[in-house]
Amino acid sequence: MDERIREHAEILVDWSAQIAAGDDVVLSVDEGAHELAVAVAEVLGDRGANLVSVYRSDEIQRAYLRAHDGDFDTDPEYERALYENADSVLVLGGTRNTAGTADVSDDRQQAFARARRGIREGRLATDWVKTLHPTRALAQQAGMAFEEFRNFVYDATLRDWQSLAEEMDRLKTILDDGSEVHIDAPGTDLSLSIEGRTAVNSAASVADDSHNLPSGEVFTAPADAEGEVTFDVPMTVRGKTLRDVHLVFEDGEVVECAAAAGEETLDALLNTDGGARRLGELGIGMNRGIDRYTDNILFDEKMAETVHLALGRAYDACLPDGEAGNDSAIHVDLIADTSEDATLSVDGEVIQRNGVFRWEDSF
Amino acid sequence: MDERIREHAEILVDWSAQIAAGDDVVLSVDEGAHELAVAVAEVLGDRGANLVSVYRSDEIQRAYLRAHDGDFDTDPEYERALYENADSVLVLGGTRNTAGTADVSDDRQQAFARARRGIREGRLATDWVKTLHPTRALAQQAGMAFEEFRNFVYDATLRDWQSLAEEMDRLKTILDDGSEVHIDAPGTDLSLSIEGRTAVNSAASVADDSHNLPSGEVFTAPADAEGEVTFDVPMTVRGKTLRDVHLVFEDGEVVECAAAAGEETLDALLNTDGGARRLGELGIGMNRGIDRYTDNILFDEKMAETVHLALGRAYDACLPDGEAGNDSAIHVDLIADTSEDATLSVDGEVIQRNGVFRWEDSF
Repeated sequence: MDERIREHAEILVDWSAQIAAGDDVVLSVDEGAHELAVAVAEVLGDRGANLVSVYRSDEIQRAYLRAHDGDFDTDPEYERALYENADSVLVLGGTRNTAGTADVSDDRQQAFARARRGIREGRLATDWVKTLHPTRALAQQAGMAFEEFRNFVYDATLRDWQSLAEEMDRLKTILDDGSEVHIDAPGTDLSLSIEGRTAVNSAASVADDSHNLPSGEVFTAPADAEGEVTFDVPMTVRGKTLRDVHLVFEDGEVVECAAAAGEETLDALLNTDGGARRLGELGIGMNRGIDRYTDNILFDEKMAETVHLALGRAYDACLPDGEAGNDSAIHVDLIADTSEDATLSVDGEVIQRNGVFRWEDSF
Repeated sequence: MDERIREHAEILVDWSAQIAAGDDVVLSVDEGAHELAVAVAEVLGDRGANLVSVYRSDEIQRAYLRAHDGDFDTDPEYERALYENADSVLVLGGTRNTAGTADVSDDRQQAFARARRGIREGRLATDWVKTLHPTRALAQQAGMAFEEFRNFVYDATLRDWQSLAEEMDRLKTILDDGSEVHIDAPGTDLSLSIEGRTAVNSAASVADDSHNLPSGEVFTAPADAEGEVTFDVPMTVRGKTLRDVHLVFEDGEVVECAAAAGEETLDALLNTDGGARRLGELGIGMNRGIDRYTDNILFDEKMAETVHLALGRAYDACLPDGEAGNDSAIHVDLIADTSEDATLSVDGEVIQRNGVFRWEDSF
């Protein structure tokens, strides 16, 4: 076994999920994630945790959903009980075909998701972590050779997370203490209020309420957006490519929009509901192991020298107790490159210039 | 997909497990049983059952057990709750390596099994069915080419079970009404009392308390064995080949034993406890789709023109209410070929001669 797989398993169990002896762990194994599952099982055994492996197969799910034409039962008790009694759920992504459920209708998929909402909530109430085992299908989606993609995934994942968490904490402190963020870049001149908001240090550990491995972003919930922004990192949303999305904000709301590609999809997103025209998240990527876009949000939004803004729902963790953040059925991240001709300022002070933070030697 | 896999799935869901709309089904999927799992998911979806897939991987289990060197927790609640709330458990055997846990110590495996006894009982309290998807590893174990083994498995599994169940019921009636069985064959001259015992029609359906697919045997709990018996079908027990086991019974107990191979293992089995020297089962194979020995008890004991006797524990289903049958920690089946120079009689009347039952045309 590739030693990197063992290292991945150790980071997942120890740093990300913080698993201790006696913990009841559900291991959710994608069709192509077998090898990582074996490595994780070894670490879980060594740590004295309990293990139940669930098989997360797109092909099984497709066959089941296509054949099931009646109503779905709501939250069957046997599945609910599994997750409600679990301490941790480790989701090992690793599909063998990213189009594996392409011929299941959206209606059927959404009806099933609605019928399993309580189970999903039970799962999200555990110390869950989602990670990714490199497969050929995922390499193909990223436009990379398999070996190239494996190197990419491990560069992004096998970080010194403790050290990155400390660096990210510097940024968190600045954002927590600050009142206004300003982003300047070609096609971007945007002000955001962050007064009273709390930033989340998303360093791939449940200890910081961070549930993705890899991670490496600091995010908060902005308000009162004013100005314009261009998202020059292309991405696929609902099966369509969005390219060079340009938004103009007034009083926190999108008043103009355009895109070089995907404008219809963009319109549909913005018209979902009232909250869809407002921002729910400002995120700043800090993972220097991620050195290119792959059209996979798990990686792209954590890439160093980028910022992202999400249209739609805000995360409660960023809001003062009792304050409701922006609410919406959507949360769509859009990403801007800040590596050239760009500054990020807080209360008038530049904290990042051309992708370099002010505490870095090359600032 | 091979149409036989779909047919296998339908027999499993409809005939064997008798699954109805709304049933909560756990699908336990071996590493090599993916294709059958997809076919079963399709049938479950069509029938409106609920589905949770569990991944049953020897490689994961090996890694976990070898790394876990402390005590195992007893019946973790999250796993117990899954099975206790389930209606059916469908176990899809299909290993990719029959020696997959060869380097896990017996002590470790037994300690784990003891710690999960309650979960095992919860699973056995459901309408569980164990079946087998052909893999190259299982073909190799059977000494067959892969295609040959697939044909063998489907010949054994894709039967007209309704019709076989009716034929088996004839034999069940004879055994239920009878008092004494006599087996005559080369090296065998054995009498068994079956007075007051009830035969089980094991026709691969939970409706008849039969939990293996394929099946095809009628079995009961004999007493007072007297005489000698030779088991000429070789089989592997505890990793050792037993060949031509010869046992002499007096007053229901083994008083002499010999074997052409595996005598040490045979001695160890007989000395396990008091019940290990007595018989717990007489079974009569009736599946004419199984035409050769493969050293896999799931098939061998159901083969037509064979009888088998088990040393050790008897099944309660064969005993009158309140009567305790033979008790032992072991239940080891040994098989004798009755296709040549053999008769099987009940109360002095020949019911099978040279493998042919008295209701068959060629009797």
